[in-house]
Parts: sequence; structure tokens; C-alpha cells
Amino acid sequence: METYMKSLDNLFVHFLRDVYYAERQINKALPKMAKAAQSPALQDAFVHHREETQKQIERLQQVFEAIGKRAQGVTCEAINGLIEECEELLEEAKEPSAVRDSGLIACGQAVEHYEMARYGSLVAWGRALGYHDAVALLQQTLDEEKQADSLLNQLATNELTVKAMKAA
Amino acid sequence: METYMKSLDNLFVHFLRDVYYAERQINKALPKMAKAAQSPALQDAFVHHREETQKQIERLQQVFEAIGKRAQGVTCEAINGLIEECEELLEEAKEPSAVRDSGLIACGQAVEHYEMARYGSLVAWGRALGYHDAVALLQQTLDEEKQADSLLNQLATNELTVKAMKAA
Repeated sequence: METYMKSLDNLFVHFLRDVYYAERQINKALPKMAKAAQSPALQDAFVHHREETQKQIERLQQVFEAIGKRAQGVTCEAINGLIEECEELLEEAKEPSAVRDSGLIACGQAVEHYEMARYGSLVAWGRALGYHDAVALLQQTLDEEKQADSLLNQLATNELTVKAMKAA
Repeated sequence: METYMKSLDNLFVHFLRDVYYAERQINKALPKMAKAAQSPALQDAFVHHREETQKQIERLQQVFEAIGKRAQGVTCEAINGLIEECEELLEEAKEPSAVRDSGLIACGQAVEHYEMARYGSLVAWGRALGYHDAVALLQQTLDEEKQADSLLNQLATNELTVKAMKAA
């Protein structure tokens, strides 16, 4: 029964596979989110984060290589739920609008926060395990996810929310 | 078709219901997580956060009241996915161990991050909508979630991860 819980190393690999699956799902979702956004600034934010996500996937492949494991995903119910919420939101509002943009930002931020939690755990465990090369790569992605969340936060607290309120 | 996407106010209420559902699921999950933890410090952290969660549920009821809406939840697939991941982890490792504690912390932090994203959006929208009383209540919870995440972070980066590594 016990598979990934025998050692911290097993746990590290399991969560690495979880986030590898998650990043690839996010990579598929981001173009839809960019296409759905009305605000050019929000479109740009999603397009830019898609490019980052592709680099983050490559970086994860380098992490797998650094620890001598095959790059492989494992189904992550959390990211499936988060992406399902984005899709529901787009089904509710068929047309682009400032309100839909606000909802898209909220979905995007929930995804960023999920990634921040995962990469944070991986960095802490990688450090304890002495995986220096892996930690450097994971930390780089963690910083990018925080940055992406900050940018969405700026969009949410500045013009977009005000536009959405006026659209009401 | 369009229900909660007509106005920012609709979106605010929808996400309030989403987080109300989420908090009640977390309230059910936390005692299991506290029971599963081996480290007394981690047990305490989960027990303490359960008490906070109960206050946060009451605070959400006050927010619903402040905006003249009935307190009501709406299924949130994201929190269901996050909790499912915690349960999977506990199924994988039947016995308490330092490694299982590390996994529990990671699950707990993913949940905290989800809540931080949700309350962050609600605070931004509530401000734009002029819901001052609601914003004050939501901000209080947002601060508690950040604090809970920091505590789990401390536990992860200090003794617990080192113990988990030695257990390997």
C-alpha cells in the first residue's frame, strides 16, 4: 500500500510529479483564458504566463533529470478542480466583459497560489535532501509564480475591478 | 444561462458562497488531519486552525448578513480536489510518521493558499463595491490564513523536514 510515503525522497518525487501534471494542465488552460479576457492587459498577462509555464515545464524536466528520475506526471485532483472552476465561470458568461475579467483574475490567482504552495514544499524538502541543483530550479519557478500572482493582484485592485463595478 | 456573472456584486456573492462551502469542508477535514499528525506541534497547529475556521465560518455568516443575503454554500470543486489529495496521502501512509507529517503540512499549505486567493479577491471586490463592514471581516480572515500558512511554513522548514529526512 505504501508507495510515496516511505521517505522524504519518495514524497518529493510524488509532489514533483503532481506539479508536473498541474503545469501541463495549466499550459492547456492559459490560451483559453487569454482568449476569453476582454482587457488587453489581462490578455497579455495570460499570454506571458503561458510562455513562462512552458519554461517551467522544461525546468521540471531538468529537475527530474538532476535527481535521476524519469519526467512523469501523476493526476492532481486539486488542479483539475481549479481549472474546472475557470471553465464553469466561462460557461456562465459567454461574452467577454469586465465582470468576466474579474472572475478570470480570481481563477488565475487561485492557480498561482496552488503552485506557490507546491513549489514552496518542494523547495523546503529539496533543501533538506541536499538537492542543490533541483532547489535552484524550483526556487526560480516559485519566484515567477509569486510575480505572476502580484501582477494579477495589481490588475484586480486597479482599473479592472472598477470597470467591472461600473459595468454592473 | 448567465447567473453570477451579470455584475461584480453577483460575482462577489458567488465567490462568498464558494468560500463558505470550502470553509465548512475544511472544518470537517481539520480534526482528521490533527489526529493523523505525529508531531505535537503540528497537531496543535491543526487544532488551533480548526478553532479559527469555526470563527471564520461565523464571520462569513456576518458578511452574508451585512450584504443582505442568506448564508448559503455552493459546491467548490477546487477545495474538494485539495481535500481529496489530503485523504489520498493518509491512505498511502496508514501509520503516523515524520514523512506523513511533511505531506500533511504540504496539504495544509495548499488549502491555506487557496483561501488566501479567495479572500484576496473578495476583499478587492468588496472594496470596489463599498462593502466596508464585509471587507473588514474578510480582511481579518485573510490575515489569519496568511498567519496559518506562515506557521506551517515554519514547521516545514524547521525540525519536521529534518526529522522526515532522518526517517528515510
